Amino acid sequence: MNATANVDGRRARLVAQLRKDGLDAALVCSYENVSYLAGTHMLTQIMVPDRLAFVVIGPGDETSLLVCNIEESQVRAQSDITDVRAYVEFEDDPTKALVTLLRERGRLRSLAYEARRLPAGALVTLQRELPEIELRPFDPHLDELQGVKTPAEIELLRDSANATLDAVLKTIVEVDSGQTERGVSNLIHRRLVESGGDPTFLVFAAGERTMHGHPEPRDELLTPGAIWRTDLGARYRLGFNSDVARTGVVGEPAAAQAQTFAALHAAQGAAIALAEPGRPAKELFEACRATAVREGLSFTMPHIGHGLGIGLHEQPMLEPRNDQRLHAGMVLNIEPLVIVADRHEAYHTEDLILVGENGPVLLTQPQAELLRIPAR
Amino acid sequence: MNATANVDGRRARLVAQLRKDGLDAALVCSYENVSYLAGTHMLTQIMVPDRLAFVVIGPGDETSLLVCNIEESQVRAQSDITDVRAYVEFEDDPTKALVTLLRERGRLRSLAYEARRLPAGALVTLQRELPEIELRPFDPHLDELQGVKTPAEIELLRDSANATLDAVLKTIVEVDSGQTERGVSNLIHRRLVESGGDPTFLVFAAGERTMHGHPEPRDELLTPGAIWRTDLGARYRLGFNSDVARTGVVGEPAAAQAQTFAALHAAQGAAIALAEPGRPAKELFEACRATAVREGLSFTMPHIGHGLGIGLHEQPMLEPRNDQRLHAGMVLNIEPLVIVADRHEAYHTEDLILVGENGPVLLTQPQAELLRIPAR
Repeated sequence: MNATANVDGRRARLVAQLRKDGLDAALVCSYENVSYLAGTHMLTQIMVPDRLAFVVIGPGDETSLLVCNIEESQVRAQSDITDVRAYVEFEDDPTKALVTLLRERGRLRSLAYEARRLPAGALVTLQRELPEIELRPFDPHLDELQGVKTPAEIELLRDSANATLDAVLKTIVEVDSGQTERGVSNLIHRRLVESGGDPTFLVFAAGERTMHGHPEPRDELLTPGAIWRTDLGARYRLGFNSDVARTGVVGEPAAAQAQTFAALHAAQGAAIALAEPGRPAKELFEACRATAVREGLSFTMPHIGHGLGIGLHEQPMLEPRNDQRLHAGMVLNIEPLVIVADRHEAYHTEDLILVGENGPVLLTQPQAELLRIPAR
Repeated sequence: MNATANVDGRRARLVAQLRKDGLDAALVCSYENVSYLAGTHMLTQIMVPDRLAFVVIGPGDETSLLVCNIEESQVRAQSDITDVRAYVEFEDDPTKALVTLLRERGRLRSLAYEARRLPAGALVTLQRELPEIELRPFDPHLDELQGVKTPAEIELLRDSANATLDAVLKTIVEVDSGQTERGVSNLIHRRLVESGGDPTFLVFAAGERTMHGHPEPRDELLTPGAIWRTDLGARYRLGFNSDVARTGVVGEPAAAQAQTFAALHAAQGAAIALAEPGRPAKELFEACRATAVREGLSFTMPHIGHGLGIGLHEQPMLEPRNDQRLHAGMVLNIEPLVIVADRHEAYHTEDLILVGENGPVLLTQPQAELLRIPAR
């Protein structure tokens, strides 16, 4: 992989945005934005959130990476940023080390920051130590920066999604109703790992627990006739995520179950059809909702999909208030979920779509009907 | 599992602390503290960090849980908190929903909060909307609340650590130098999942990459004579973590390698011996460091261990500035790591220790010598 050129292009676009907004520098701290802008992959940003890491970009293209000394050798091997500073955990307060770094930059008048991710305590320290610097939230610009993917990123996302989907499809033909939820989930998990992914979440549930948001698998046998659903993802190379969902039945579907899925498939298709440049994100939501309602489904989801990249839920969120227009090169997960309350079932399907120059390009193949796990 | 009584006891202790500090209420938002105080397990708190969740406790024992509507049915099934409120993602700003909830509480004069975890943007909103409420950081008290484990929690942590350790020990006797790093890692991963764990991280590296903080496995064969190390963890029931590390060699160790490990084992043992009530945390660090240096090792770690629970790195951190005294019932990971620069190797070993009434109780059995993966 040639991360270097890639990461350089990303920072250049950020610098251009800062200039446009009249901002001197940007401070990023989240796992997603640090990974994106520095080319790093520091698992401890997720696992040990107090071990802060910062990238400071600006004035101009001056760039520094400030990490805990435990991570130093690793980020030097991963990143093309040459100014890597390390603080000693517990000996140094990472935010004070950041203050020192910012002071060295000379007279900064303004600093863009991640209001959604910077810890409140760090903001308080910056305000107190650097009262002369105007701190300005910059989250939407950081989101936007990551919206349009490069061809290499699109390929990576496509391959990752299909590897994840394969883990499901290859598993369900090998099992039957003699398996427990956990048994099936473990087999999917194994394939996910063998495909080179680092699993991030794996929902597998049958029956009424399909209605929960993110249920964990239980040690219960699959019951013939039960609806099951899985929603899963993994991190692949360069920190990029996969995220797919599928719904199926144990044995043969009842007519009502098949009909519900057909309606969900139609609703997903209505959204996919609008994945074209210039289309406001909310129109995909609206098309999906309208189709679902017309098909007689109860529709309560606050969104029907999202961008995908190093973040699991990136902009554009496909939600009813999002006026943001789609651009060619955006990669979207389109994932309607409906609950059939009187049958105590939820149906969910999720596919990866590229916003192509001429309209939607399917990066995974949507399921046209309920998948089957054989009944014994 | 009887989470209810457990969780009730946890909140009662928080309420007592608030009263002692003259604080009206507490606001918690991190995955760790929400899980601990509400008995929930919301994976999306980690995977989708913008989907905020809040627990408000106080005045008195009045308790509310505010979550995204997608999580509502699940948290109602998991938590004993009856006042569950849901905001609709994208339609409602979660922090504004929090403001509404706080206003309903009547005249709050003070609110404890997590300065290390509350997003800066949420702090700014609270300051602006509720200027009459004094916001006071409360992180150390929240850490302290989780330090001493119940007998049931100790059992859970012990079993989880041993299940994780078993995944390593059972795998290495089945492989040899015909395997790649990734091959071994995948086999360990599979066992981890089969043991009921949800893997959170898995380092497996050989040769000079052992020196990095958290290297990922590569598709490279294990070289006879190479040192390998693994550091891994998983989440088990109720969100409790495991975290163990082991170092080994491919084939037979060179005398110098065996000697380095013996010295590391002695350094670990020196720290373990001091895991007794009343002992300041920093003395364990100091004993470990002094032994390592006396044995001729280069010692640069900023800490040599940490508490373990729902958080991966909990207090007490075993670091040179931590005066906090140990209490019976604390559960500690003791994990020295040393780098042998001239041989381009790192050695790391990590075990789980209970601070017992009468001194240390080993919850995992420390390795006395380098583990072996046979050379072909």
